[in-house]
Amino acid sequence: MTLFSELQQLLGADRVQDSAQAEALLRDRHGRFVGRVVAAVHPRDTAEVAAVVRLCGRHTAPIVVQGGNTGLMGAATPDASGRAVLLLLDRLNRVRQVDTDNDTLTVEAGCILQHVQEAARAASRLFPLSLGAEGSCTLGGNLGTNAGGVAVLRYGNARELTLGLEVVTADGQIWDGLRGLRKDNTGYDLRDLFIGSEGTLGIITAATLKLFPLPAAQCTAFLAFASLARAVAFLSHARRGFSAGLTAFELLSVDCLRLLREQFPASPLPFPELEQPWYALLELSDHQDEAHARALFERVLGDALENDLLVDAWIAESLAQSEALWCLRETMSDAQKCAGQNMKHDISVPVSQIVAFVESTDALLQQHFPGVRNYTFGHLGDGNLHYNVAHAPGRSVAEHMANYAALSQLVHDSAHAHGGSISAEHGIGQRKRDLLARYKSPVELELMHRIKQALDPRGLLNPGKVLPEASA
Amino acid sequence: MTLFSELQQLLGADRVQDSAQAEALLRDRHGRFVGRVVAAVHPRDTAEVAAVVRLCGRHTAPIVVQGGNTGLMGAATPDASGRAVLLLLDRLNRVRQVDTDNDTLTVEAGCILQHVQEAARAASRLFPLSLGAEGSCTLGGNLGTNAGGVAVLRYGNARELTLGLEVVTADGQIWDGLRGLRKDNTGYDLRDLFIGSEGTLGIITAATLKLFPLPAAQCTAFLAFASLARAVAFLSHARRGFSAGLTAFELLSVDCLRLLREQFPASPLPFPELEQPWYALLELSDHQDEAHARALFERVLGDALENDLLVDAWIAESLAQSEALWCLRETMSDAQKCAGQNMKHDISVPVSQIVAFVESTDALLQQHFPGVRNYTFGHLGDGNLHYNVAHAPGRSVAEHMANYAALSQLVHDSAHAHGGSISAEHGIGQRKRDLLARYKSPVELELMHRIKQALDPRGLLNPGKVLPEASA
Repeated sequence: MTLFSELQQLLGADRVQDSAQAEALLRDRHGRFVGRVVAAVHPRDTAEVAAVVRLCGRHTAPIVVQGGNTGLMGAATPDASGRAVLLLLDRLNRVRQVDTDNDTLTVEAGCILQHVQEAARAASRLFPLSLGAEGSCTLGGNLGTNAGGVAVLRYGNARELTLGLEVVTADGQIWDGLRGLRKDNTGYDLRDLFIGSEGTLGIITAATLKLFPLPAAQCTAFLAFASLARAVAFLSHARRGFSAGLTAFELLSVDCLRLLREQFPASPLPFPELEQPWYALLELSDHQDEAHARALFERVLGDALENDLLVDAWIAESLAQSEALWCLRETMSDAQKCAGQNMKHDISVPVSQIVAFVESTDALLQQHFPGVRNYTFGHLGDGNLHYNVAHAPGRSVAEHMANYAALSQLVHDSAHAHGGSISAEHGIGQRKRDLLARYKSPVELELMHRIKQALDPRGLLNPGKVLPEASA
Repeated sequence: MTLFSELQQLLGADRVQDSAQAEALLRDRHGRFVGRVVAAVHPRDTAEVAAVVRLCGRHTAPIVVQGGNTGLMGAATPDASGRAVLLLLDRLNRVRQVDTDNDTLTVEAGCILQHVQEAARAASRLFPLSLGAEGSCTLGGNLGTNAGGVAVLRYGNARELTLGLEVVTADGQIWDGLRGLRKDNTGYDLRDLFIGSEGTLGIITAATLKLFPLPAAQCTAFLAFASLARAVAFLSHARRGFSAGLTAFELLSVDCLRLLREQFPASPLPFPELEQPWYALLELSDHQDEAHARALFERVLGDALENDLLVDAWIAESLAQSEALWCLRETMSDAQKCAGQNMKHDISVPVSQIVAFVESTDALLQQHFPGVRNYTFGHLGDGNLHYNVAHAPGRSVAEHMANYAALSQLVHDSAHAHGGSISAEHGIGQRKRDLLARYKSPVELELMHRIKQALDPRGLLNPGKVLPEASA
């Protein structure tokens, strides 16, 4: 019997699609990667996932897991061999448990992130993971890539928000590690090994997540800085002044704002004259009340103005104004899209290296690629910049993109030289896989290969992703 | 040449001790475990640690790393075979870097925890890991066991406080993973695999740690509760009211306080009549100032009194009073020692299961071991109780301790049945090693064994610790 027929027998014909039926799932969102499969399957529960894995094992068929297909690195797209089975977890979308006294939520991997946030809110709690794709990405994808987003500064990545996991192993066993414990020192940290492994070590089917109190009040402001160094100094000031109340600090260069103004002229900018080189969106979350939040916010901002850390601050006076500020930040991706393709780099460096990184990388770019334009924005508090580079005026996008390999290498080399990472929050997938050999030490790559070999000795879980080919 | 001579040649004779010279290091603090070694060695830097590991590899000699020798599970004590080399990291005690803009500190594994705290404070920052042994335990031991302590509620375990590691692998290579990055999604999470592995997967030689702003003010109170359920409900109330300002919530049963009164009659108790069954030490850390802290503290406690969550609250009016409250909490270990040996259990359960766990376990104990006395205290906010059991009045300590295996199994079975852990913060070592087979699933044990095999295929790193013997 063929694998396709056996899958149909296992799951029923309506939950097994062939390549033609599954076509939309076989390419990533940006059309960079396209693959083929034996079948795309939709198991209904963890036991069925395990059965699919065992069946694929008997047929030596690779397995590629896909969540909302919103990833940027091609981690969820199968290769072109047509040998793989695409595993969709969309039917595993139950909230299994809400435990308010323990401040935890147990949900299945196929849950849309926004539904997880809503389930928390329905229990008067906050699940703080938040990112642009939250309306369509799934928790399983968030965990597979250790997703970041706009609240990492206060709450950490997906990893820090997870207490327990349920995982189907490469040989189709189920590991029930769904513990809702803040402290459990009984052996190796399997949880964190599976998180961020992009489906190459096991298949995450459910997770127990941390919940937090909902803030009683929030204040948002748009800030103008005379230099990037002042923005970094302000961040330090805000950390002292707000402590854990500092829940977002999103940096945007003046060029980003100019682009927003060009692309969306109807959206009002807080500082329409755009006289400063750097801007940031600041958010304070307060556990007391509006009055306290506002007084503290104004005091900390006032001190910063007095000490020249800030040039100006525009404080949102209503929820609508606050939402408009967030909207500015969130339309940056669209604004870039409308302005034509650019080269995106999701880098991080220690916060203390941000200024040196930006200044030296900007200068190197102008030296080697005269006239290119930087659109730098991102999560300054995490040292994570989306350091994007657009074509020089007078040159075409195509000419610019032809320099992709050399220009990106310059940016990545610079991040690496500043103690940084070439993928802060987007992962590795197939897109950055071969870069790892340049930026990871041989000993680290060897340790990764050994772990892969230990947990997936037949190499059937998401082959060709994350790990560069082992050197001979 | 013998291993001993080669070690002397490598390090110099003054940094290589024989078993007789190293005698004090070959037993754990409580004298439960005693071992023998070929030598105890004191390398001066990471390269020397790697050289020792390679040398031991050539002689097929096991390596046991030891920090401050304060562990409770015998993880740092070699076995009796006399084949091992004991590796002391006391010379690796440098602070390599303080990066205030990045809020990180890079220190070597041999640093005493208190010195790490002091280095942070000298930079006007907080390194929040804090536990009873902080004056003598080392950061390496803290990371090897993923130490917990009194500030986990707000800041997490040692794991959550660590951004990067330097590790010597089983084959004597050096992995430089000392990254000071909040976001880095470039491959498998090796860091968290080494943390908590108790020296069985690699030897941690340095770490880059997270720093936090120093609180501007702190308030401490001693609280009296009519029941354990009220204490749990109060905790939820305090989380909402204080949010991240809630930095400690240490529970003590009335029997613990009676014991303290008996053993240290000179120490004044906030509620000398001891009329309630449960008490707790509460700490608020505030980033504004004394006045704000005090007003918030009184408001949240006032609301709790009004809603009957609390029976009474005794607020410390001075630093001296606050320190006296902490002293009460910290002398619990000594008080128990003075009262004669008891059976200690470092368990955790979801906070929502605390009441059910304590009530059912107390009842089961009385049924099977009539008259035994509970001394239950611990970190309620983490679901982590030190659930200690002393002899029944009229029975000897020796008679009581003869029941150790059966009584402890009852307690551990109960924690496990309530979704809990048999070792919340003390680790496994050799003492709890064989219990894992009872409480871990075969699939989890198999994954652990595979990882051990992958990273230490010759089994030379701290053999006999953490992992139960592989089943045939």
